[in-house]
Amino acid sequence: MNIRKKSINEIIQDKGLAALGDTYVNFVYSLVKSKVIGKPQGERVRGKVLAEALKNSGLRSYLPNRLSSHELSDAVEALLVYSWLNKLVSLDEVVSILSSQIKAENFSTKEQEWKEAVKAFTFLLIKTKGKLKS
Amino acid sequence: MNIRKKSINEIIQDKGLAALGDTYVNFVYSLVKSKVIGKPQGERVRGKVLAEALKNSGLRSYLPNRLSSHELSDAVEALLVYSWLNKLVSLDEVVSILSSQIKAENFSTKEQEWKEAVKAFTFLLIKTKGKLKS
Repeated sequence: MNIRKKSINEIIQDKGLAALGDTYVNFVYSLVKSKVIGKPQGERVRGKVLAEALKNSGLRSYLPNRLSSHELSDAVEALLVYSWLNKLVSLDEVVSILSSQIKAENFSTKEQEWKEAVKAFTFLLIKTKGKLKS
Repeated sequence: MNIRKKSINEIIQDKGLAALGDTYVNFVYSLVKSKVIGKPQGERVRGKVLAEALKNSGLRSYLPNRLSSHELSDAVEALLVYSWLNKLVSLDEVVSILSSQIKAENFSTKEQEWKEAVKAFTFLLIKTKGKLKS
């Protein structure tokens, strides 16, 4: 599938990309969690985690005011899968970038796990932002 | 993550692999659907589709009798992600194998789409079976 280069603004408002990105983000995070824990796991990433990471990354300003967490997380999902589809980053790199920010010993509670995930996705978004045209 | 080689029997009963495989299958099928339709889409693959493909592929006999569709689809998810994790097949190959079996013009109804998906996953499972030790 060819996805033509778009501006960050166009990417993060594409609902089809967000839907594809939702499956991508869950798969990638499940791989990362499996890797840091050391055995296979499946996980659905909470919208609030991605919305928080978007705010921390400085990309929030590309979107209109007064959006829900769900709309903000759609934007993150669209952006991340777009970067992969356009080979700005490989699956191996994404797994490695996220894993580098996550310590399995901080997974004592679900809340702790999500804090780690926010940190990791923030770091990934900052790296991704640098590779996209604004 | 290192997953040691296991027999087909062990793989398809691994619930962690099934959970990771669930995210993998949804992502892969979403990529395939995006490719055949020509624009990004997200999709969750129904358990019944994978259970049906398992029966058609000749792999049903590796599992005990009287399992639910959900348990059969877990087995498929575990098997498919195991093959990818162990580099028996690449993501590009999987997308290409599934896409070769699916015609977007048969997506007139949801039921038609799932028939196409059963055919595609059956074909993928037969190919995968050939690469695994029994």
